[in-house]
Amino acid sequence: MCELLAMSANTPTDIRFSFTGLSQRGGRTGAHTDGWGIAFYEDKGCRVLHDPAPSAESELARFVRAYPIRSLAVIAHIRKANRGRVALENTHPFTRELWGRLWCFAHNGQLKGVKALPLGPFTPVGTTDSEHAFCWLMGELRARFDRRPSEARLRKAVAELFARLRDLGVFNALLSDGMSIYVSCSTRLCYVERCAPFGPAALIDEDMEVDFSQETTPDDRVLVLATQPLTRNETWRVVAPGSSLVLKDGHVTPL
Amino acid sequence: MCELLAMSANTPTDIRFSFTGLSQRGGRTGAHTDGWGIAFYEDKGCRVLHDPAPSAESELARFVRAYPIRSLAVIAHIRKANRGRVALENTHPFTRELWGRLWCFAHNGQLKGVKALPLGPFTPVGTTDSEHAFCWLMGELRARFDRRPSEARLRKAVAELFARLRDLGVFNALLSDGMSIYVSCSTRLCYVERCAPFGPAALIDEDMEVDFSQETTPDDRVLVLATQPLTRNETWRVVAPGSSLVLKDGHVTPL
Repeated sequence: MCELLAMSANTPTDIRFSFTGLSQRGGRTGAHTDGWGIAFYEDKGCRVLHDPAPSAESELARFVRAYPIRSLAVIAHIRKANRGRVALENTHPFTRELWGRLWCFAHNGQLKGVKALPLGPFTPVGTTDSEHAFCWLMGELRARFDRRPSEARLRKAVAELFARLRDLGVFNALLSDGMSIYVSCSTRLCYVERCAPFGPAALIDEDMEVDFSQETTPDDRVLVLATQPLTRNETWRVVAPGSSLVLKDGHVTPL
Repeated sequence: MCELLAMSANTPTDIRFSFTGLSQRGGRTGAHTDGWGIAFYEDKGCRVLHDPAPSAESELARFVRAYPIRSLAVIAHIRKANRGRVALENTHPFTRELWGRLWCFAHNGQLKGVKALPLGPFTPVGTTDSEHAFCWLMGELRARFDRRPSEARLRKAVAELFARLRDLGVFNALLSDGMSIYVSCSTRLCYVERCAPFGPAALIDEDMEVDFSQETTPDDRVLVLATQPLTRNETWRVVAPGSSLVLKDGHVTPL
């Protein structure tokens, strides 16, 4: 098992609070000790930081918890290896360029026979099932559309491809091009929507509390999605197994 | 103008000393204040850290100067923008996957008419001439070879493509797949070879000295290549303008 985290916001927002909670599960409050990674979009650019060391101990994770990087779209992953050795090249999120955008992908679950899916122009660098699934997905999108299609057509295609991967096993996954975050839920994901009136939130995995009313303006919207709730005094909604969502500007809609 | 830095070694080596010198030139001892980036290969994996903030002030650059990341192949860049606004997506090194390997690229110089070069399956994310040149180069390699060719054929192809780019202007550039670093010199590059007997080295841009005999074994080989010498008490060899090199395991050979 691995754990996933995503954030979508309508104003550049830093994810240190949520990442502080998640990263404890990589060795302190959880056993996901086989690496971690996080992708922050800034306009069309993307910073991807990852490390095969446990997130609770990694020096780079400490940097991410301490240094505010503001973004509209973030995805993160902490890993418990099942397929593919513990190594940087097997650490999510994975990144490829398609249609002049950087796409990042992180996955939790096991997919039976995924390596039989034929690959197009994208080739895995590491040996995980997850990166194979991502390369297949990118290749399928490229085969269908020479250039970026309308958002409606893109969503329909992603939803179809997500459903095909869910048929192979457990496919809880996050895919982003920096504008939207596409979400697949096979078994377990939940989210919290933060908007005015903002209130306090306290982490489950660490003694840390934030009063969001001090950090926000009334127009801000932030959506945080994770494998398991990260805070103990907010309402986390469960995503229906077998469904796909899209997160954009802090809003969630079915894909 | 920008400045480049590369390191090739036959044993995992940390580049903090050289990067400390280079990063001062991003705002303190030099005017390359429009961002910086560094790519560290670890086996087939690659960490790429970059920041549009000046390297002399960037918090992330401070982390890189403080935290030892050991690698056999590193490329770095500090930017003085001429084409393309200051933004994360315009910050070198750029990365693409080809034949199941992550390729990184950094460039110094201006290329006349480069955007007329036709692109294959790789599309720029930002607006720099450099990323266009990189995408063209990757597309040409892919058009010539469906899968990774022999090292001899690959070197010949890279040398031809580098020469074509040098015909368009100034193309001082670094390209790596993690196994080799391919180097093009139009105008200005130099390198130092460190091997036994190791001695002391002192930076030009910062009051910092290292005695490499304390940090190495007699079999170690490290080659550091940069736009301008980084140390004041070592022999830096000038790369011939109009030539291409390949760095591998701390050795340099003509491409």
